[in-house]
Amino acid sequence: MTEDGRILDRLFATLSARRGADPASSYTARLLAAGSERVAQKLGEEAIETVIAAVSCDREAVLAESADLLYHLLVLWTERGISPAEVWAELKRREGVSGVAEKAGRGKQS
Amino acid sequence: MTEDGRILDRLFATLSARRGADPASSYTARLLAAGSERVAQKLGEEAIETVIAAVSCDREAVLAESADLLYHLLVLWTERGISPAEVWAELKRREGVSGVAEKAGRGKQS
Amino acid sequence: MTEDGRILDRLFATLSARRGADPASSYTARLLAAGSERVAQKLGEEAIETVIAAVSCDREAVLAESADLLYHLLVLWTERGISPAEVWAELKRREGVSGVAEKAGRGKQS
Amino acid sequence: MTEDGRILDRLFATLSARRGADPASSYTARLLAAGSERVAQKLGEEAIETVIAAVSCDREAVLAESADLLYHLLVLWTERGISPAEVWAELKRREGVSGVAEKAGRGKQS
Repeated sequence: MTEDGRILDRLFATLSARRGADPASSYTARLLAAGSERVAQKLGEEAIETVIAAVSCDREAVLAESADLLYHLLVLWTERGISPAEVWAELKRREGVSGVAEKAGRGKQS
Repeated sequence: MTEDGRILDRLFATLSARRGADPASSYTARLLAAGSERVAQKLGEEAIETVIAAVSCDREAVLAESADLLYHLLVLWTERGISPAEVWAELKRREGVSGVAEKAGRGKQS
Repeated sequence: MTEDGRILDRLFATLSARRGADPASSYTARLLAAGSERVAQKLGEEAIETVIAAVSCDREAVLAESADLLYHLLVLWTERGISPAEVWAELKRREGVSGVAEKAGRGKQS
Repeated sequence: MTEDGRILDRLFATLSARRGADPASSYTARLLAAGSERVAQKLGEEAIETVIAAVSCDREAVLAESADLLYHLLVLWTERGISPAEVWAELKRREGVSGVAEKAGRGKQS
């Protein structure tokens, strides 16, 4: 079994450590210092780029833009004090719900 | 050590299994059957909702929309034949780069 | 000289008249009754569809999605109490600035 | 009666004249030279900014971002060879349809 998505937890820990660091020291510190609207805006921009890569059928670009999107999503969580564990819990909760919901043919995540 | 982000790998496996299933059987099967533009569109819509939740300072909504966004990103990967492992590898690759880049004060992911 | 963009002013007047109307009576009344976040969300969704149409090189779709985007932008202005005349004035103001700025090679709108 | 939205037709004519101009001469020429994906991306980014301004309840920002969004929509039309008159015609066509459709309570643009 590989490390799976643990990279996201590790990356989140790194980003959290950058919070409050000198904005001149890293891109993350600058982004966090710029405030919540700027963090949300960057997330939106990366999503647009992922959508464009997807529609352009550019596999390498989808891969690269997905990484950018995840990175900026983690910055948003850092900025909002949301831990990855909370999001994993939410996904697991739905997983359980969708198992039931799928039987009824209504589950969004099924 | 908790399961960390392994939920994403497990969810991806579930989604992949839905590929080619009867569209009537699940939301995922319907979305995959609708084609790549529809999958990209849904990802964009969930990103908009995440941005709105972030700007509205609604912590619970950011959590819920982040889960929706991740789910639809996984659907996109499923549709494009991109495995989560490839994205984790890309993030790890950048992690290494940013470690070096940060020393020079130029790393985007630092 | 044709009517040019006057359709936008006329459509705005129609939308404004729908404000406060029975949500059951029209799509616009329902959207306005749903509140500002919903109006913003719809604008974002239409923008995503316009971007997808553009990248897909689907001329007819760009035309149709542009009309949808403009319609929802007008709904946003209606909701925010912004008249089209204010936006035209802003565009004219920039036009003047860009005329000067272009000489200096720096105008964004030039 | 004021000039209404004629500024959009005039701005479109200005943008069209920039097509093929030296990219160093203006922002528009640079954007058009960068190609259709870049034009679509910029439209998406301006839409994100408009959404954020709307949700932030920042009236002046909605006004300014609306102007930016319209400008980049016109650049997209220029790039795709879509004249504003075609979009106005599409909006007028729907206006007629919605007049009828509204009676039946189903019109999207009503």
